[in-house]
Amino acid sequence: MGAETMVDSGSSTAVEAVSADPVVMQASVLRNSAFHLEDVPVPEPGPGEVLVKVAACGICGSDLHTFKHQTDLIDKVKAMGADASELERAYSEGVILGHEFVGEVVKFGPATQQALAVGDRVVSMPFVLKNGVPALVGSVPELSGAYAQYMVLTEALLLPVDKDIPSEAAAFVEPLGIAVHAVAKSGISAGDIAVVVGAGPIGLAIIAVLKARGIETVVASDLSEKRRELATTMGATKSIDGSQESVIAVASALGGTSRMFVYENTGAPGMLGNLVLEAPQAAHITMTGIPAGEESFVPMMAISKELSMSFVIYYSPEEFAEALGMIGAGQFNWQALHTGTVGLDGISQAFTNLADPELHAKILIDPWQRA
Amino acid sequence: MGAETMVDSGSSTAVEAVSADPVVMQASVLRNSAFHLEDVPVPEPGPGEVLVKVAACGICGSDLHTFKHQTDLIDKVKAMGADASELERAYSEGVILGHEFVGEVVKFGPATQQALAVGDRVVSMPFVLKNGVPALVGSVPELSGAYAQYMVLTEALLLPVDKDIPSEAAAFVEPLGIAVHAVAKSGISAGDIAVVVGAGPIGLAIIAVLKARGIETVVASDLSEKRRELATTMGATKSIDGSQESVIAVASALGGTSRMFVYENTGAPGMLGNLVLEAPQAAHITMTGIPAGEESFVPMMAISKELSMSFVIYYSPEEFAEALGMIGAGQFNWQALHTGTVGLDGISQAFTNLADPELHAKILIDPWQRA
Repeated sequence: MGAETMVDSGSSTAVEAVSADPVVMQASVLRNSAFHLEDVPVPEPGPGEVLVKVAACGICGSDLHTFKHQTDLIDKVKAMGADASELERAYSEGVILGHEFVGEVVKFGPATQQALAVGDRVVSMPFVLKNGVPALVGSVPELSGAYAQYMVLTEALLLPVDKDIPSEAAAFVEPLGIAVHAVAKSGISAGDIAVVVGAGPIGLAIIAVLKARGIETVVASDLSEKRRELATTMGATKSIDGSQESVIAVASALGGTSRMFVYENTGAPGMLGNLVLEAPQAAHITMTGIPAGEESFVPMMAISKELSMSFVIYYSPEEFAEALGMIGAGQFNWQALHTGTVGLDGISQAFTNLADPELHAKILIDPWQRA
Repeated sequence: MGAETMVDSGSSTAVEAVSADPVVMQASVLRNSAFHLEDVPVPEPGPGEVLVKVAACGICGSDLHTFKHQTDLIDKVKAMGADASELERAYSEGVILGHEFVGEVVKFGPATQQALAVGDRVVSMPFVLKNGVPALVGSVPELSGAYAQYMVLTEALLLPVDKDIPSEAAAFVEPLGIAVHAVAKSGISAGDIAVVVGAGPIGLAIIAVLKARGIETVVASDLSEKRRELATTMGATKSIDGSQESVIAVASALGGTSRMFVYENTGAPGMLGNLVLEAPQAAHITMTGIPAGEESFVPMMAISKELSMSFVIYYSPEEFAEALGMIGAGQFNWQALHTGTVGLDGISQAFTNLADPELHAKILIDPWQRA
């Protein structure tokens, strides 16, 4: 579709934005619990920074969480007597989310090395180094993420994306990096058995990483039939409905006396406590799912079985690079997960659609796509 | 003291018990929530088993826990709809506790290797192998522990105790083994900082193991002044009153950006949740303390800080042997922990006395001591 025929009131700025030195861009700003498609200034790269034109950005479960629970979180922080002013400022001034991105180098800021060239495609961990301290993009009004046409990144963190890798694939590096990290931190090795609770994008990526690591038996559970199919597609030995049978019992029957590694990706209330009750001797539980509030369990059960737990959210630079390498090597079936692409004006609808796991797994945003 | 002058009504059996093939012994039987000093048959070693004359046995926190909470546990198990009949049988028939022991080989059962000789002193992990399956001594009426003059052990699990090691010292091998295991499982290494919450015998042993492993900064906390003194004696860099200041804050100030390893040995309600709130990025929490019921924490805090946790109760055979080696090498100041010795008739009073941390740390039982 030509921009000339399909544009709305934001079109003139969009055309301007593709020029060599763009000054205005379209962005989807989350403000007061709603997404607003707006023209905003293109951020200026500071020392050691690079301006990148966003090619694609995945919608992450944590974005959905922020969208749904922003006001709850403010209330909770206040109830704890802590300072919620920064959260309230983000809520009212607005933030530009988006941390699963790939883009193209547009312009170098001062004091850059410029080993890469304008036009090179890059991914990056979603941090910008401010005086050496990493700040998460898309978390505060001043540091916009990739729900926009352009973003500023730290040059030292950029990884070039091979020409053979489509941008749709490169947008999966970030969630796959979490899976690489979760599996590495768990300490699983060949001969162990894996249980993946919740086959959303992270759970599915964990299955792929486990298979790439040579883990033979991977039992997945999800309440959604479509997600169970995807789990099997990604390599799960067996995919079961956790509401009908115990995934740990099924895995124990398959795995014999192998040590069990459980990856909990649902964040469902009560799930951790159940896993502690059901887990066999010496099992390790890795939590990537984020429950909304407190969770409880019986330490006596964890102690008598000598369980261990890891709580994970990010990755090391090496793990992030490894995820890019896996995608380059064709070890991650991102096509199975990629269930849709929307423009910046389609984000609200995409958030609604993502609530139905039978319909969608990962929706990408193409900030240059016209409705 | 001669047995002739000090004996009471149990004296004739006690004299019989020191003969070459003893048939009756004194034991302290925990039955219906009370200790009973009784004459009981000396157990007969089966195939692969050895009869050992107990020289010393430590009173463990878990013995205190069993003593105090035996009926609560039965009620809880019943409330969960589970089978409490074995627990009820142990309660009414009685069990002989005691799993921190050292003794002398008296007699070999059939099908034994007899690499050791009668008279050799030995320690053992507190398990007897029944058809290859380890059964915990002192847990059921049929498998008596070391609150008695004799006990049966599995020959294959015996470790000889060097003549230079006093029996009082060897009785510390078991709790020190837990500390060796807790430190090994935590993954701490030189340059990391340690926080030891609760300076009871396990916490104090953990401090000793940490220092032996070259951990420079070890901050301990305990509500008892005497225990804080002991923590410092064992090598803690600083020992603080956890009710007055935050041990994690104090450790953070001392440790800078070092990774923090927390060892929680109190089992106090709410402690785990507090540690999750206070722990810095990437901290590891090891739990040896056993809270009575459920504990809750905020997974979001654990996930955003990428915490990890280990729950520990036992040790490997190698770790148990390492504890014996540490004691042999003079790396464990057991003398500081050893605050008293009682006979079998002094156990009830010892349990009462152990409730006061200002008075006691570890009380040993000498089952041959006359009141």
